[in-house]
Amino acid sequence: MSKYWSKLVSELKPYIPGEQPGNKPGEQQVIKLNTNENPYPPSPAVAEVLRHFDIDQLRQYPDPESRDLIAALAAYYHLDANQVFVGNGSDEVLAHAFQAFFKQDDALLFADISYSFYPVYCGLYQIDYRQVALDQAFQIDFDGYRNANGGIILANPNAPTGIALELAAIRQLLADNPESVVLIDEAYVDFGADSACQLIPEFPNLLVVQTFSKSRNLAGIRLGFALGQSELIEGLQRVKNSFNSYPVDSLTNAIGLAALADESYFQQCCQRIIASRESLGRELESLGFEVYPSSSNFVFVSHPEKAAETLYLELKSAGILVRYFNQARIDNCLRITIGSEGECDALLAALKKILR
Amino acid sequence: MSKYWSKLVSELKPYIPGEQPGNKPGEQQVIKLNTNENPYPPSPAVAEVLRHFDIDQLRQYPDPESRDLIAALAAYYHLDANQVFVGNGSDEVLAHAFQAFFKQDDALLFADISYSFYPVYCGLYQIDYRQVALDQAFQIDFDGYRNANGGIILANPNAPTGIALELAAIRQLLADNPESVVLIDEAYVDFGADSACQLIPEFPNLLVVQTFSKSRNLAGIRLGFALGQSELIEGLQRVKNSFNSYPVDSLTNAIGLAALADESYFQQCCQRIIASRESLGRELESLGFEVYPSSSNFVFVSHPEKAAETLYLELKSAGILVRYFNQARIDNCLRITIGSEGECDALLAALKKILR
Repeated sequence: MSKYWSKLVSELKPYIPGEQPGNKPGEQQVIKLNTNENPYPPSPAVAEVLRHFDIDQLRQYPDPESRDLIAALAAYYHLDANQVFVGNGSDEVLAHAFQAFFKQDDALLFADISYSFYPVYCGLYQIDYRQVALDQAFQIDFDGYRNANGGIILANPNAPTGIALELAAIRQLLADNPESVVLIDEAYVDFGADSACQLIPEFPNLLVVQTFSKSRNLAGIRLGFALGQSELIEGLQRVKNSFNSYPVDSLTNAIGLAALADESYFQQCCQRIIASRESLGRELESLGFEVYPSSSNFVFVSHPEKAAETLYLELKSAGILVRYFNQARIDNCLRITIGSEGECDALLAALKKILR
Repeated sequence: MSKYWSKLVSELKPYIPGEQPGNKPGEQQVIKLNTNENPYPPSPAVAEVLRHFDIDQLRQYPDPESRDLIAALAAYYHLDANQVFVGNGSDEVLAHAFQAFFKQDDALLFADISYSFYPVYCGLYQIDYRQVALDQAFQIDFDGYRNANGGIILANPNAPTGIALELAAIRQLLADNPESVVLIDEAYVDFGADSACQLIPEFPNLLVVQTFSKSRNLAGIRLGFALGQSELIEGLQRVKNSFNSYPVDSLTNAIGLAALADESYFQQCCQRIIASRESLGRELESLGFEVYPSSSNFVFVSHPEKAAETLYLELKSAGILVRYFNQARIDNCLRITIGSEGECDALLAALKKILR
C-alpha cells in the first residue's frame, strides 16, 4: 500500500502467471509443462525473418495499424481487414475488449472455472460480473447464460479444463443474447475445437479472440488478435488508440506474418501435439488418473489416491513444472501442458516413480 | 457508434499519431521529420542480437518481470531493481501511471501545450484534469502548479516545444507537492536536458519515464521504462499484472539490453543530433523563422510571413513530412524532427524554394 496509489490500484488483485524459471545455461533444465507453450520451435520462416531483417527499420515506429499483418489475417480467416484487430498478446486484446464492451450496467457472465484473468480485468475496469458454475463434469451450463447480462465470455476450449463447446451451442447463445457482446476466447482452438469465426458474418455481437502464443509456437513475441464485425473492431481500436498507438512492434509484425504463411508447419505441429495428447491421456488413465476430454494442448487430470498439490510439488522436485490451482472445485486437479514426445515420456516416468 | 460499445468507449477521443507512410520499395521515399524518430540506425549490437537469437526461445513466454533488462537499467541509472519498471513503449508505461496514480479526487495538472496523449489517457481512465497555460514564451508557469491537485505531469523537455526545465525548478515542484505524484516525462531528455532521476532517492513522489524510441534509435521495438522509489514501481506492477503479464517480448528484452550496453554509440548519435539541431536552428533563423530553444531532437518553429499549415502542406508535396498541430496557440508552429545531415539539407532546400 502507498498513499500515492489510486483507490482502484490499492484494491486490485493482480493475475499470477505460471512460473517462468528461465533455463539459463549451467542451471538445471526444467521441463516446463505449466504455461501451455508449444513444445516445438516456431516455423523456420521465423529464423529467416530475423536473419534478413534490416535493423534500420527499428529506428522508426511500426505501422500503428499493422496493415500487412491484418490483411494476411483477414485473408486467412476469410474476413475483411476492418474485421480484424491485433494487439500485444491476446491478454492485451482481452483487456481492451473488457473495457470496450463489458463495462455495462448489467453484470458480465463467465464460468466459475475458466481463465483466471477474467475477474482480474473486471477489477481493473470496475466491471460487475457473475460467475456461472460449470456442471459436475465441468461442462458449460448454458441455462445460466439466459439472464440479463452486460456481456458473456467463454473460453473454447475452456481453460484449465480443456473441454470444447459445440458450435451449435455457441450459435444458440449468440441468438439468445442479441444485445450483448459474446466473446469466445479461442486461445487453444487449433488443437481440436471448432472456431466460431465462421459465425461472424451472421452475428454482430460475436467477438472471437485468438493468439500466436500456442498453436503458432510464438508466446515469446506477444501477438494476439480479435475477429468480429467492424463495429466491434472499431470499439477495440478506440481503446487501443487511447492507450498505446503502436502496440505491435515491427519485428512482431514481420514474424507473425511469416508464421501465418507457413500453413504446413502449423498443421504439422498441431497434429503432433494432438497425437501426443491422446497417447499421454491413455497412459495417464492407465496410471489411475481421471483425464477430462481435452481439445487443447494440455490435459486436466486428477488422481483418486494422490492429492494434486502433492503431485505438483513432487513433480517440481523432479524438475517438471505443471500447473496447480489452489481454487475451489479444482484444487485436486493438475493442468499439464502437452510437451514434446520426450517430455511426455519424462513426465510419465516421474509420475510412475511418485505413484509407485 | 455502436450499441455494443460501453459508454466510456463511445465518449473517447483517441490520440492521433503522426503519419507512418511506410516507405515501400517502388514508392516515393518520404523524408520523415514528423514523429521524432532517430535518423540513425540502432547500435550494431542490435544486428548481432538478431543474427544470433535462438528462435526456439520464442515458443516460450518472455520473462514476465524482464529481470535482466531491469537489472541493466538499474545499474545504468544507479538505482535498485525494484526502482525500475519496463513496458511496451513509454505510452504504455504512461497509461499505467495515469491509472495507478492520477485517478484521484483532485484534478491532475499538466500544461495546455504538451504531449497530446495526456488528455486522452484522462478520457480512458475518467481522470479529472486541469491544464495550466504555458507563458507567452511557452515556458512552464510554476505558480499554476501550487494548487491542490491529484498529480502533476510535465514533459521535460516539453513536446512539441522542445523547451527544457531547470532541475532546481523540478526539485521545488516535488517539495511543494509531497502528497502528489509528480511524473517527469523524459522522452527527449538525452538530447540536452537534465534528468530528474538523480532526485529519486530524495523524493518518494517522483516518477521519471523514459523511452528507447528516441535517443536509443529503437521506436520499432516499443520499449519504455519508469524510474522511481519502489512503492511507485509496485503501483505500476499492480496495474501491469492486472492488464498483461508479459508486455515486453523476448526480442525486445534482448535488443534493449544490447542497445543499453553500447554507450559510445548512444553518445555519438546524441551528439550528432545535437550538432545538427544547432546548425539547423541557425539556418532556419536565417530564413526568417522564429526557433524556440530546443533541448530535444526536434525544433519548434514559426514563420512571420508564411502560415504553418501552408508550409506543412507544401513540404508534404515536396516529399517531406513535418508535424503540424491544428490546436489553439500553436497552430502557426511546426515541429520538425532533426533528421540526418542530408535530410536537414533537403529540408532547408525545400524551405528556401517555398519561401522564395
